[in-house]
Amino acid sequence: MQAQRLNLVLDSVMRLARRGAMSNALNLLTKLRPVDIAQILSQIPQHDREPIFDALVRHDLAKAAEAVSEMETVRAVTLLTTLTREEISRLLQELPSDDAAVLIAEMPEETRDALLETMRVEESTDVQELLGFADETAGRIMTPDYFALEEDVTVSEAITALQKRSEELEMVFYVYVIDPRNHLLGVVSLRELLLNPPSTPLRKIMITDIIKVRTDTDQEEVARIVATYNLLAVPVVDEENKLAGIITVDDVLDVMREEATEDIYALAGVSAEDRVRGSAFNSARQRLPWLMLSLGAALLAVAIVQYYLDTISKALWLAVLIPVVAAMGSAAATQTMTVVVRGIGLGEVSRETSRRVVVKESLVGLINGLTVGVVAFGVISIWFGWKVAVVLGLTMLLSLFAACLLGALVPVALKQLRADPAPASSVFVVTLTNVVTFFFYLGVATLLIKFLHP
Amino acid sequence: MQAQRLNLVLDSVMRLARRGAMSNALNLLTKLRPVDIAQILSQIPQHDREPIFDALVRHDLAKAAEAVSEMETVRAVTLLTTLTREEISRLLQELPSDDAAVLIAEMPEETRDALLETMRVEESTDVQELLGFADETAGRIMTPDYFALEEDVTVSEAITALQKRSEELEMVFYVYVIDPRNHLLGVVSLRELLLNPPSTPLRKIMITDIIKVRTDTDQEEVARIVATYNLLAVPVVDEENKLAGIITVDDVLDVMREEATEDIYALAGVSAEDRVRGSAFNSARQRLPWLMLSLGAALLAVAIVQYYLDTISKALWLAVLIPVVAAMGSAAATQTMTVVVRGIGLGEVSRETSRRVVVKESLVGLINGLTVGVVAFGVISIWFGWKVAVVLGLTMLLSLFAACLLGALVPVALKQLRADPAPASSVFVVTLTNVVTFFFYLGVATLLIKFLHP
Repeated sequence: MQAQRLNLVLDSVMRLARRGAMSNALNLLTKLRPVDIAQILSQIPQHDREPIFDALVRHDLAKAAEAVSEMETVRAVTLLTTLTREEISRLLQELPSDDAAVLIAEMPEETRDALLETMRVEESTDVQELLGFADETAGRIMTPDYFALEEDVTVSEAITALQKRSEELEMVFYVYVIDPRNHLLGVVSLRELLLNPPSTPLRKIMITDIIKVRTDTDQEEVARIVATYNLLAVPVVDEENKLAGIITVDDVLDVMREEATEDIYALAGVSAEDRVRGSAFNSARQRLPWLMLSLGAALLAVAIVQYYLDTISKALWLAVLIPVVAAMGSAAATQTMTVVVRGIGLGEVSRETSRRVVVKESLVGLINGLTVGVVAFGVISIWFGWKVAVVLGLTMLLSLFAACLLGALVPVALKQLRADPAPASSVFVVTLTNVVTFFFYLGVATLLIKFLHP
Repeated sequence: MQAQRLNLVLDSVMRLARRGAMSNALNLLTKLRPVDIAQILSQIPQHDREPIFDALVRHDLAKAAEAVSEMETVRAVTLLTTLTREEISRLLQELPSDDAAVLIAEMPEETRDALLETMRVEESTDVQELLGFADETAGRIMTPDYFALEEDVTVSEAITALQKRSEELEMVFYVYVIDPRNHLLGVVSLRELLLNPPSTPLRKIMITDIIKVRTDTDQEEVARIVATYNLLAVPVVDEENKLAGIITVDDVLDVMREEATEDIYALAGVSAEDRVRGSAFNSARQRLPWLMLSLGAALLAVAIVQYYLDTISKALWLAVLIPVVAAMGSAAATQTMTVVVRGIGLGEVSRETSRRVVVKESLVGLINGLTVGVVAFGVISIWFGWKVAVVLGLTMLLSLFAACLLGALVPVALKQLRADPAPASSVFVVTLTNVVTFFFYLGVATLLIKFLHP
């Protein structure tokens, strides 16, 4: 819905609720799509939100459940905890088990167990199975509510079966074809069902060269596969090729958003939960560790500068140029890390190509180190004389080369060690680059001064 | 396909091609999915790639066209230019007009016009119409090959019509319902066709509260809408609500990837075309402008330090602490900019909430400025004494506050001016923060020294 229309509805709902005309407010609200209800609930100030949500749960549980599943997880959990456990478990039962699992996973452990006990056995088992898979894997984000038939079933039988189960199935795009022991044999698209004669058995029209993922496949890899092969849903199988669930393209869109945000944030040292809309205190607390790391790294540079204090006292221009020495290595390192980390995220860096990536980035460092070095030499030789300029020019060459080499090497190495390349790389690379750069800068200057004024 | 299997096929294709057994190589290649052919062609060294691609075009034009449409645009265009114009235009005719438009848009102007002339009139008109819309808008990325029927058509007639046109239509998820003058009235999902009796007219089962976009809607907004409402395709209408085309979810996945990469890159000063696999020289050239801007910003700081040289000569610890002064403002500014720019990208910052975002980030700056200031004071007072520590502590407080205030204000302001918030923000914010920080640091120190040693 348009932001303006949404704001109008938001205002009306709040006015009605405050005036005590709650049933009018609910009538307005329940006419909307679940996503829009979620948006409105998220924007209502907290003290108004809870009574409205409470009334909505009692008025239309299914709609309330759908709205909750469209909210950001943290916000949804906060809202849910204002309800009684009884209400929460009834609401969770309305949701597909993958959505319920996401919410339950975020709850405090004791609430979690209590909830699973009060839920209907069937739903509770599904959710517990999903929670058994590791976080950020296909098993965790899949839904076990797929539509599967055996290979002798005909097109018309398949359509009848689909019509019967259409209520409970979230989104159906494909019919999965399985054997009696649930092994995945093939897949038939909904479109094929429409295009083939009613008596055709699925065996004849199914595709057997199936693109599938395993329950332990990383969710980032799942997103990549769905995007690459333009799929609407991908089947998830266990180690014996038994169909365990499916992941639909709308969930993949959410994964891609989430992973892209993680990549962007990691390079700047921001935690994945940090949002423009959260509380200032929370954001501040989450960003502090990174700032402390940066402070530590800068103090290391301070120690190096102090070590050469004698040299600096003889040539004050060394101090004046420190801002350039401190800035350029970080700038080049950040560029390289950004390209390499994003390349890893997009699946463009394999074990085979990683050496080529490191060589390429080192070359970039050499070329730009040379260029920046020459420009810096030119500017500084006019400003401070050629001796100073030589030291700074050489420092730039070395600094940018080290920055690009390390900026590629560290994330690639972390990836080979199966660690997440993004978060750890940044401070480490910049610190290392700065240590090398400062030692070189002040070391060369010390030699030069000894040589010129023995 | 698995990376390992892909590498095996790649090796075989190259070996066969080099031995002159080109038809065997082609047999291997054309058995694969177009995406996989695209991947293999991208990984073959250039001097082998062109003859293989040339042979593929002559052997199976349709497959070659599909493979080209799965490649990165720049690479695809490079490969196409090895063909004759005649061949290029025949290949482009095989593609859906949105894919053809993307490729033609990237070609040199004279080639573009020549191609449009040699293509069949119908295809050429479609492509020219798409190229008439601005870059990165819905009109540019939509496909005009949608499936639309009038409201009196029955379910069974719709299925027959679908069966007839299934060859030429790329991906059908919805039937769009239009009036005789092509105005969009409603939408029926493929699933509804399966679930309703054959004689039902579309009018009875269509949804009329349609989510749609306009031809001039930004592609980022399109992606957001498709993701929010879990759509498989979104209809694109012109200013009179006439149906102009559709955008399918697979294209939205590509847009999301592209936009996320743009956001990540912009903050680090990397151009959108820079990839891990490109040439070192190209990458170096594209990253140089940003490095030069950073050099300029650092030289500004040098000028400030030089201005206070007299003060520094009296108190060398001022020089020693410059790395801390230079680093912390940038770190905090980058954190804030990352959160705010990503928030804008995800559509979480509206005109109404932007003031709240700036206030929140300033608060974050105050809190962390205070914390980092106190820690820096503690460490430095042990290391260099309390006078030095007071100056640095106060500088940290001011620096982090300025960094967070500017880091939120600048992207939000750029967004309100309808400029892209990401690329311009970063250097500007960091430079401004550094100027304020250095003036404050050295200014306060100068006052202190005057006061202590008058």
